[in-house]
Amino acid sequence: MPEISIVLVEPLYEGNVGFAARAMKNFGFSHLVLVSPCPLGPQARACASHAADVLEHADEMTIEQVFDTHDLAVATTGELSKSVCRSIRMPYSTPKELREQLQGAGGRVAILFGRENWGLNNTEVERCDLICTIPGSPEYPILNLSHAVAVICYELADLPPPQYRIASREEMECLYRHLDLMLDRVDHPAHKRRNTLIMMRRILGRTRLTTREVSTLHGLLRRAEWHMEPEHSPDEEK
Amino acid sequence: MPEISIVLVEPLYEGNVGFAARAMKNFGFSHLVLVSPCPLGPQARACASHAADVLEHADEMTIEQVFDTHDLAVATTGELSKSVCRSIRMPYSTPKELREQLQGAGGRVAILFGRENWGLNNTEVERCDLICTIPGSPEYPILNLSHAVAVICYELADLPPPQYRIASREEMECLYRHLDLMLDRVDHPAHKRRNTLIMMRRILGRTRLTTREVSTLHGLLRRAEWHMEPEHSPDEEK
Repeated sequence: MPEISIVLVEPLYEGNVGFAARAMKNFGFSHLVLVSPCPLGPQARACASHAADVLEHADEMTIEQVFDTHDLAVATTGELSKSVCRSIRMPYSTPKELREQLQGAGGRVAILFGRENWGLNNTEVERCDLICTIPGSPEYPILNLSHAVAVICYELADLPPPQYRIASREEMECLYRHLDLMLDRVDHPAHKRRNTLIMMRRILGRTRLTTREVSTLHGLLRRAEWHMEPEHSPDEEK
Repeated sequence: MPEISIVLVEPLYEGNVGFAARAMKNFGFSHLVLVSPCPLGPQARACASHAADVLEHADEMTIEQVFDTHDLAVATTGELSKSVCRSIRMPYSTPKELREQLQGAGGRVAILFGRENWGLNNTEVERCDLICTIPGSPEYPILNLSHAVAVICYELADLPPPQYRIASREEMECLYRHLDLMLDRVDHPAHKRRNTLIMMRRILGRTRLTTREVSTLHGLLRRAEWHMEPEHSPDEEK
């Protein structure tokens, strides 16, 4: 199965970290990553129960390091964008759909869970490739952190062995930079740029491209560039 | 959807009761039943968070009352019988299978969760119609109580409206008594009786019989009885 890391971003309560470690181990996951966690003491260990090993081997990382060391990043969020035009938190997958999306794909996958009080912020969500939301009751849709971890781990348990490796984080970032340059080249308006790039990330994030597919897309972009009018130098434009 | 009650049997820690209430509300469930619970104080309310109403409206019942007031009882268990010959905890359904089994059936369904330290005892499991086990890692398959509640509620959320009503508890118990009498009538050995009756309960528990089906089964049993040799009176046998 893909190498899945459970990433808790700035968890506030050590009990939740311990319970999350236990839920992970219950479903066969062992790589816990903590970004600026609260201090972890006896309560975290008590809640982890027989998953103290998961807690002890947890990696502390910055959010940048999380993105750098994982090929695919999934943001879990309880709060959805109001409209499909806002790409940051849309479209989203249910945990069942996430399972289907990860099926067959090999690589390092990070599943990010936000703070107990306000989840992941927009900057963090933007950088993620996929959005996953646990469908809950409209009356009270916000799960406790460790229960959200339990539901996701339950759904992703025992994924079959991967059939192919997905493109690495570096390859994907290089493709996004190429797309950004291409938008420059076609005079894409600056004020729309950020949202368009997030949408590209949402679209391509769902596709789990292989390295070969990434390189074909680069080739197509280059071929389009060759057929464009020569670029004006910034001096000429002034 | 069927009227589903989440039943916690002798929960030991108030935090788990609070978290269970929250997980229930997260997935649209509201009827919590407590059998001899630990005292519930501020910690239960804190863990319930915005599900304090579920906690406040919880019903306290004896285990007998649970069976009497629900048409179908589901035992959740982490510990499985070693062999399919031991019917008490076998065969079992996964939460996904449980969802399929409950689909379409109307009636009062109780889902029982055992104590944090040793689950449901055999006497309690025996009386249940269905067994449900959350598939976990063999290394550490035992979930925290409230996380087990969360996973089951997640799977059973938003069941479609029922298409038919299942036979009531009274009707099913009357059928089991008839089967027991029939076993008497055919000289079924006493030492096998208990296991055979549990197996009948396991088989029929999976079928969600309607009232009409129950009455047809009674009819078939009666028809068989009419064709049997006249019963020896106990005096004659001596």
